[in-house]
Amino acid sequence: MTMTGQDHPFDAATRLTGGNGRYQGHTAAGYANMVGPFGGIIAAVMLRASLDHPERLGDPLALTVNFAAPLADGSFDIDAVPVRTNRSTQHWNIGLTQKGLTMATASAVFANRRMTWSSTEMHYPALPAVHDGVRISDEHFPAWVRQYDIRVLQGGIPPSLTIEHEEAFTRAVSLQWICDEPRRPLDFLSLAAICDTFFPRIYIRRNQFVPAGTVSLSIYFHVSTGEFLALGDKPVLGSARANRFHDNYFDQTAEVWSQDRELLATSSQIVYFKE
Amino acid sequence: MTMTGQDHPFDAATRLTGGNGRYQGHTAAGYANMVGPFGGIIAAVMLRASLDHPERLGDPLALTVNFAAPLADGSFDIDAVPVRTNRSTQHWNIGLTQKGLTMATASAVFANRRMTWSSTEMHYPALPAVHDGVRISDEHFPAWVRQYDIRVLQGGIPPSLTIEHEEAFTRAVSLQWICDEPRRPLDFLSLAAICDTFFPRIYIRRNQFVPAGTVSLSIYFHVSTGEFLALGDKPVLGSARANRFHDNYFDQTAEVWSQDRELLATSSQIVYFKE
Repeated sequence: MTMTGQDHPFDAATRLTGGNGRYQGHTAAGYANMVGPFGGIIAAVMLRASLDHPERLGDPLALTVNFAAPLADGSFDIDAVPVRTNRSTQHWNIGLTQKGLTMATASAVFANRRMTWSSTEMHYPALPAVHDGVRISDEHFPAWVRQYDIRVLQGGIPPSLTIEHEEAFTRAVSLQWICDEPRRPLDFLSLAAICDTFFPRIYIRRNQFVPAGTVSLSIYFHVSTGEFLALGDKPVLGSARANRFHDNYFDQTAEVWSQDRELLATSSQIVYFKE
Repeated sequence: MTMTGQDHPFDAATRLTGGNGRYQGHTAAGYANMVGPFGGIIAAVMLRASLDHPERLGDPLALTVNFAAPLADGSFDIDAVPVRTNRSTQHWNIGLTQKGLTMATASAVFANRRMTWSSTEMHYPALPAVHDGVRISDEHFPAWVRQYDIRVLQGGIPPSLTIEHEEAFTRAVSLQWICDEPRRPLDFLSLAAICDTFFPRIYIRRNQFVPAGTVSLSIYFHVSTGEFLALGDKPVLGSARANRFHDNYFDQTAEVWSQDRELLATSSQIVYFKE
């Protein structure tokens, strides 16, 4: 089933009221994480505040979200300010507050892109021949996981998520097919959220769940509005790995590819973990 | 020669006056880029505004700088606001203005880190056995390049920068030894700047200079203040590559390693280019 428009839980969870750069939203139980909401839904709703702003120019190009504190269940305010508008780019500062306290900050760059020479230097991931992926269904995963159909090809956390014949990998690599559940046509908002659907690499690397939370997330978009039409609601391929675990923080990088092997977005994040 | 403290050109270029979150700085001719200052020196001076702030907690962990417009030669203002201070982390919004206009925005996360299990998943780059690197000396490079001793092992742009026996590489990869010239003990500020010393990948990939400029830069720091002592002023190893060139933007990722193979910082940036 594919849902569009305001009926989809994703659209309900990123719905904003208000206007002129001052918006109100509400947390959604379906997108809850261990503590507070799923970071991807926070990224999406903050991006939406710029995207829906009447002065917005062009398409999202870069987004950084800093998670300052776990949101409490309930309403929140978002302020989105276009701090600089150039001929073809626009810079935004976005703040999310609850009762006047900063819970998250974000910056976004929007751009009107024009067609140029293009080349994808990163290699499309090698897909295992053996299986189509293990669907995450363990009830111990947080609520937001059930808003996605995630089929994991690589990156198990046995016994909660066991990939048959998986060898031990370095770099805490994951490879997975992802789409909204129920399906929903991909757009900038859902692509932003999907960039955060990779579990903290510490789970994969040490094969155990420990307290962990993203502190800062950056996303670069490699598509324009017009290109989403061809993508529809088809699953995308996500790939992620860790760089360094050190002194209760680690960083991970990730990419999202279309089924046609187009690199849609690249992202990085730094994550707190407790031993 | 090693210089320390306020005598070094880097310290002069990142010097701030003022206080309580409102600072004044001045562009430095030595760190000029093609248009406006070198992005690395802007990143450093914006980070400094938080680092020198009396309310600062802990060490830099994450920094994102968005370059909104080329700075004009002369003075500028920086506002650094600690928007959220937790028990062990602190979130900053930093803005750089000239005559009241936003020229750059930044966010920074600081943290008090504590010792945990550590592991570097990324592999230390394979160094070519043949040479110690080609020093960049071409007078056609912008002024900031002369503030560094950069020895390029991989990533030529012939005839301006020719690496002997270099094969054609995909992913527009560069590998280079870097240190301040004259030498200066490494710290968070110089490490931030060094993360931006990799030429735009479009130069390497297409072997030509085209108009290009970083739009957004993110850096994750993997070291704490105490660890810099052991690093001294020794050259660090930088590694960079491109992910995707598309519709007048591309993204590149980079790492900075110590000579002891410690991963000091990881970074990513998205860059405008003109065909």
